[in-house]
Amino acid sequence: MTKSKSTDVEERSMELHRRLHGKITMESKVHVADNDMFSLVYSPGVAAPCMAINAEPKLAHDLTMKGNTVAVVTDGTAVLGLGDIGPLAALPVMEGKAMLFKQFAGIDAFPICLDTTDEDAIVETVRRIAPGFGGINLEDISAPRCFAIERRLQDLGIPVFHDDQHGTAIVVLAALMNACVVVGKPLGAVRITINGAGAAGLAIASMLRCANSAAAHCLTVGEVVVCDSKGIINSGRKDLNEEKRAMLKYTNPLDRSGTLRDALRDSDVFIGVSRGNLLNKADVHSMARDPIIFALANPTPEIEPHEALAGGAAVVATGRSDHPNQVNNVLVFPGLFRGALDARAKRITAHMQMSAAFAIAACVKQPAAEHIIPSALDKDIAYKVAEAVSKAWREVVSETIPT
Amino acid sequence: MTKSKSTDVEERSMELHRRLHGKITMESKVHVADNDMFSLVYSPGVAAPCMAINAEPKLAHDLTMKGNTVAVVTDGTAVLGLGDIGPLAALPVMEGKAMLFKQFAGIDAFPICLDTTDEDAIVETVRRIAPGFGGINLEDISAPRCFAIERRLQDLGIPVFHDDQHGTAIVVLAALMNACVVVGKPLGAVRITINGAGAAGLAIASMLRCANSAAAHCLTVGEVVVCDSKGIINSGRKDLNEEKRAMLKYTNPLDRSGTLRDALRDSDVFIGVSRGNLLNKADVHSMARDPIIFALANPTPEIEPHEALAGGAAVVATGRSDHPNQVNNVLVFPGLFRGALDARAKRITAHMQMSAAFAIAACVKQPAAEHIIPSALDKDIAYKVAEAVSKAWREVVSETIPT
Repeated sequence: MTKSKSTDVEERSMELHRRLHGKITMESKVHVADNDMFSLVYSPGVAAPCMAINAEPKLAHDLTMKGNTVAVVTDGTAVLGLGDIGPLAALPVMEGKAMLFKQFAGIDAFPICLDTTDEDAIVETVRRIAPGFGGINLEDISAPRCFAIERRLQDLGIPVFHDDQHGTAIVVLAALMNACVVVGKPLGAVRITINGAGAAGLAIASMLRCANSAAAHCLTVGEVVVCDSKGIINSGRKDLNEEKRAMLKYTNPLDRSGTLRDALRDSDVFIGVSRGNLLNKADVHSMARDPIIFALANPTPEIEPHEALAGGAAVVATGRSDHPNQVNNVLVFPGLFRGALDARAKRITAHMQMSAAFAIAACVKQPAAEHIIPSALDKDIAYKVAEAVSKAWREVVSETIPT
Repeated sequence: MTKSKSTDVEERSMELHRRLHGKITMESKVHVADNDMFSLVYSPGVAAPCMAINAEPKLAHDLTMKGNTVAVVTDGTAVLGLGDIGPLAALPVMEGKAMLFKQFAGIDAFPICLDTTDEDAIVETVRRIAPGFGGINLEDISAPRCFAIERRLQDLGIPVFHDDQHGTAIVVLAALMNACVVVGKPLGAVRITINGAGAAGLAIASMLRCANSAAAHCLTVGEVVVCDSKGIINSGRKDLNEEKRAMLKYTNPLDRSGTLRDALRDSDVFIGVSRGNLLNKADVHSMARDPIIFALANPTPEIEPHEALAGGAAVVATGRSDHPNQVNNVLVFPGLFRGALDARAKRITAHMQMSAAFAIAACVKQPAAEHIIPSALDKDIAYKVAEAVSKAWREVVSETIPT
């Protein structure tokens, strides 16, 4: 049954893609019907805005597409759950992303699929193509390169944001805040097990801080333990990359060791950003009372919702649209970039990200077990996120908030 | 009067650009109204076209925007008559170009403004961003770098075309063919003086061959002499760059020396791609009977049409829309890329370029002194050019024509 349903989606998607020949298209805002309009939009009239921008570069935001245009940049190494399929095969995803940018936030996004996976080359190329863009959305670039690439581009003067890291982290945190309300546990007391230490897992961990190491723009929680495919990440592990090692500064304060199952025992929250079918109902049963299960692996969750519920889960979220509580980045990136572009922010700060998470959580007036986050298709969310993000940037600029 | 008219265009252009905030915009071809459509265009359905392309890369032409998308790539070093104004200030021109691609040929073009002027860096960057594009239109890159950049990218597997070189050359040749019909002189007998040895001048010279050095896909003419700001380019000049020196193989067969005025004496054709107000009516008078004057400098021609006519010119063309016979690249690039994309050509060959020139010339059924080329706004031209270019590529592929 599930198989035939997914086959149906595949076939209909292929049919749609074959029919569309590209899901996005470029349109002129005015029609060049005569020589007069030609002379205004092109030669010779176009010289006037060119020279105005040459004299004062910031006018590009008013006189060109720059202020509303975002590059969706990928190297095709970590596409959805498909892995390293290369830049050309990643294009349908990037087009889809561009559609969502437009539909939810009126942003003109354009896919840039890079024929290189070299960290230096990606950084260099983004710098070179940056003049025409108001923002850069890094997409589906595999860990650990994604961390350095994003970090090295923060001085570009326009927002550079790796959605697979922070987009996911922001929506997970929004959902987590409301899930804690539902089960009646204070965030500052919950013990969290994250499974998956790639782009998403590390970004989630970085926005959470254990109570004994609180930092600005982080949620203060009781305890966070992160697992990768080898088990709990702790100080004794010799196989950790730079990012996983750095993360130990603010996770696993008791330096626990063992397997994912060991970590899970007596945890209040499980956040899976890993792979399908890892847990069973006994694992859920081993957790603290009223456990919160975020099984976000796509398309197959770490545990099916019905099994998690059978194991005693109080709240279950997945990445899928066919279950309640879909954790979907589309709640984040359109509004986040809308807000950043509107405020002409030079980067996306931690404060802006946290403001986005609070804004999304606040869109659910009455959190309930099957309603901890808004619908991914709710069009109001992006504008609420944008407002919060713009405000946060203005606070950064006015120096009332440290960056 | 002229001043106030140009001031008016400037002011109206600024007003229009301020109002539009960018002249092009990205649109979705379908509306994501519900979860079902979301699942087809994005996750999870999008995995099907991704994996299909991963297995067979050429399917990207059918399943994505690639097959109809062209990058308009500039470094902002030679923008219109404005010179080196940089990539950001060049953006209004690139947007205008993208509008024309869409309006005349239905092509989705996107501006890529590069923050580097280094030849190697430009070549490298274009290679890296190429996967998502079906063609590359190089634009407003200064000579002599433009020659090497275009040459080095010919193995990219998609058409790479520097419009300022070949676009101009193609439309000039189309106009020249019909101008010769008007004055009743055979092309093989006319003596031509080109003034300007930048991107356009050298490309025009390269599509013309003197009768004693005829080559495939070139117009065979009586004699071609090219001048730069130092006068006639000949073998005695020690200050020539590589491209100018190479050009001597097929121009100036008598190794003439002297000034532009010396070259012009007894010439049948003057082609100016240089700067305004260089010639007077006495210069035109010194030419052979019924001289043809192409004064293409923008916005001020090498000689005003009324003065050329007073000097005895039989046919006058300019780059301006307010005089008869406007020589405008928009007659070329939309149709040329349309044809190349439709045929899935891997490059733009000399044969395709010459076919485009003949197609444009043939659009004028009855050439006359004030009508040697079609109107720049005539929408039929692009489709006729496209047809000729597609056919030419198929001939190349079927090996009936040498490339």
